[in-house]
Amino acid sequence: MPASPPSDLAFVPFVSVQNMMRLIHHRGIENALRELAEYIEEDFRRWPSFNKTPRVASHSADGVIELMPTSDGESYGFKYVNGHPKNTAEGLQTVTAFGVLAEVSSGYPVLLSEMTLLTALRTAATSAMVARRLAPGGARCMAMIGNGAQAEFQALAMKAIVGIDEVRLYDIDPAATRKVQRNLASTGLTVTACASAQEAILGAQIITTCTADKQYATILTDNMVGAGVHINAIGGDCPGKTELHPGILARSEVFVEYPPQTRIEGEIQQMPEDFPVTEFWEVLVGTAKGRTSDQQITLFDSVGFAIEDFSALRCLRDWLKGTSYFERLDMIADPDDPRDLFGMLQRAAPSEDAA
Amino acid sequence: MPASPPSDLAFVPFVSVQNMMRLIHHRGIENALRELAEYIEEDFRRWPSFNKTPRVASHSADGVIELMPTSDGESYGFKYVNGHPKNTAEGLQTVTAFGVLAEVSSGYPVLLSEMTLLTALRTAATSAMVARRLAPGGARCMAMIGNGAQAEFQALAMKAIVGIDEVRLYDIDPAATRKVQRNLASTGLTVTACASAQEAILGAQIITTCTADKQYATILTDNMVGAGVHINAIGGDCPGKTELHPGILARSEVFVEYPPQTRIEGEIQQMPEDFPVTEFWEVLVGTAKGRTSDQQITLFDSVGFAIEDFSALRCLRDWLKGTSYFERLDMIADPDDPRDLFGMLQRAAPSEDAA
Repeated sequence: MPASPPSDLAFVPFVSVQNMMRLIHHRGIENALRELAEYIEEDFRRWPSFNKTPRVASHSADGVIELMPTSDGESYGFKYVNGHPKNTAEGLQTVTAFGVLAEVSSGYPVLLSEMTLLTALRTAATSAMVARRLAPGGARCMAMIGNGAQAEFQALAMKAIVGIDEVRLYDIDPAATRKVQRNLASTGLTVTACASAQEAILGAQIITTCTADKQYATILTDNMVGAGVHINAIGGDCPGKTELHPGILARSEVFVEYPPQTRIEGEIQQMPEDFPVTEFWEVLVGTAKGRTSDQQITLFDSVGFAIEDFSALRCLRDWLKGTSYFERLDMIADPDDPRDLFGMLQRAAPSEDAA
Repeated sequence: MPASPPSDLAFVPFVSVQNMMRLIHHRGIENALRELAEYIEEDFRRWPSFNKTPRVASHSADGVIELMPTSDGESYGFKYVNGHPKNTAEGLQTVTAFGVLAEVSSGYPVLLSEMTLLTALRTAATSAMVARRLAPGGARCMAMIGNGAQAEFQALAMKAIVGIDEVRLYDIDPAATRKVQRNLASTGLTVTACASAQEAILGAQIITTCTADKQYATILTDNMVGAGVHINAIGGDCPGKTELHPGILARSEVFVEYPPQTRIEGEIQQMPEDFPVTEFWEVLVGTAKGRTSDQQITLFDSVGFAIEDFSALRCLRDWLKGTSYFERLDMIADPDDPRDLFGMLQRAAPSEDAA
């Protein structure tokens, strides 16, 4: 008896890197960032309805491998992500990622996707969604300190979602800055390369720090930062990795994603355990204040949280509808009789004719 | 400028359900079970060298979704697995699974595989690897209480690894028993269908319990179990799900995989927190005793542990060498310059000719 062909349930849609790139161009990069920000904001607004847990990390001398699960009771999502700062020197990505969305009621996976690109997009979309609420009104210029893989995504998200028209770049490696200048050349942004962090932040209402050192570093010192700016700190995202002088944190109103994770991984790991922070979702739903004066320094101490990946996978699932930007992976064993897994295997034996 | 083709690093070997079935037949089912048992035993023997953590579970009204990670410092593995008892009634698998192996030094995934079939094999291989050490000498007959998806795998593993030649079957649903009889018809095992659990265990030196009820059930009562048997209890594997009367546990020498997980999920959740158990890896390396007399009742309270999945993925990776039983998934974004993720995306834009 020949094996029955697998049913639809056996196939999980898979979005490869190539298909992800096609899909992003199909939607347009800036539009994709705006749409992602909407999904992320929707999920931040229903923050209490998620099952939340700090990520499950496996540390080694060279880096970390993490699983980031969450669920809203209907869908379950998780991301696999690594962080290996030494990879760049070997021609590898510091961060690679993939993720899965599953149905809570059956436990069956319904989407598998590359998430290196998707994470780059969702990180920038989250930063801009937050900056739109916290940056001073009419912000037009962002300083971008650290010109690595995330830089262009940040610049375009701040353009598409906050409305900036100028980016001032600084990196200790001028080649990284040249790369960003080149990549942003035809985006409509005014791009200025600067010789120091201090020069980059001149006239900027938004300061984004995103450097890759896995150690306590001080990208911004206290006396560099004036009143009335929004700091978007995304580089400090694991224990022992920070970018800002504690004096800046003390002068700022600090906003975070999920305090139990941020106190371990974020800039505030430098501060006492009871250092006051505001959960950003509360600003969105109106139970906490955002910016309250033009003179205030607001600071988003962002480490990346599982709900943002969940939102991104949810958005991706909707993007895929009616497109062919995915393959179908035969990933779930699906015998005709669910108790007859062995029979399914037995019937798949090579027939004597075929042997 | 056209996008550069992705390098080898961008591709992750993927073993589909179809390829897993082909691969198992290629190696032979009984031989595959023996080889898996060897990999699992190897890893049990170096148990202290693993990074261990209880699985990360997300419970819902209908079931559970779990992530089971572990690492030996060189490779990292995790399995996604669900458990939804109600699925069977809807024609779905109670348990489906997939897993990933990654390189600790770079964080890059190196293997993605279906694991519904592979888990069925590794569960049976683990049971038999343990029974070979704990069952009374010369065990020839196994009682199989619960004739669901795991039953045939258990029978063949006990044949291939322990050397049994008879299986006595019992299930509350006679159709399940008939399914196992049919599937084992040409395997060389003597297969006997029984009308009760009590009848099934007559003359059996090994008693395997594997039923699917998610509630406290008593498949075996205390007075049914005589001296000198080995009980392989694999059905009780989550909080609130047990199969054995506590009186049996009290009379047995109980062996477990990883106590912090078994005390929550296994048969011993019915016993006091300090109920004495032996970690089975210690029997293998000689720091704890296994069976010490013919009259003893030994009991393997098995809930399934991440290291067994890690061993299975490691074995699978070796099985794949020199074969074509896998596809290559374009899962890892791999720009020429690792800092130039955006440039890679930009260069993948549809050209004007193609548009």
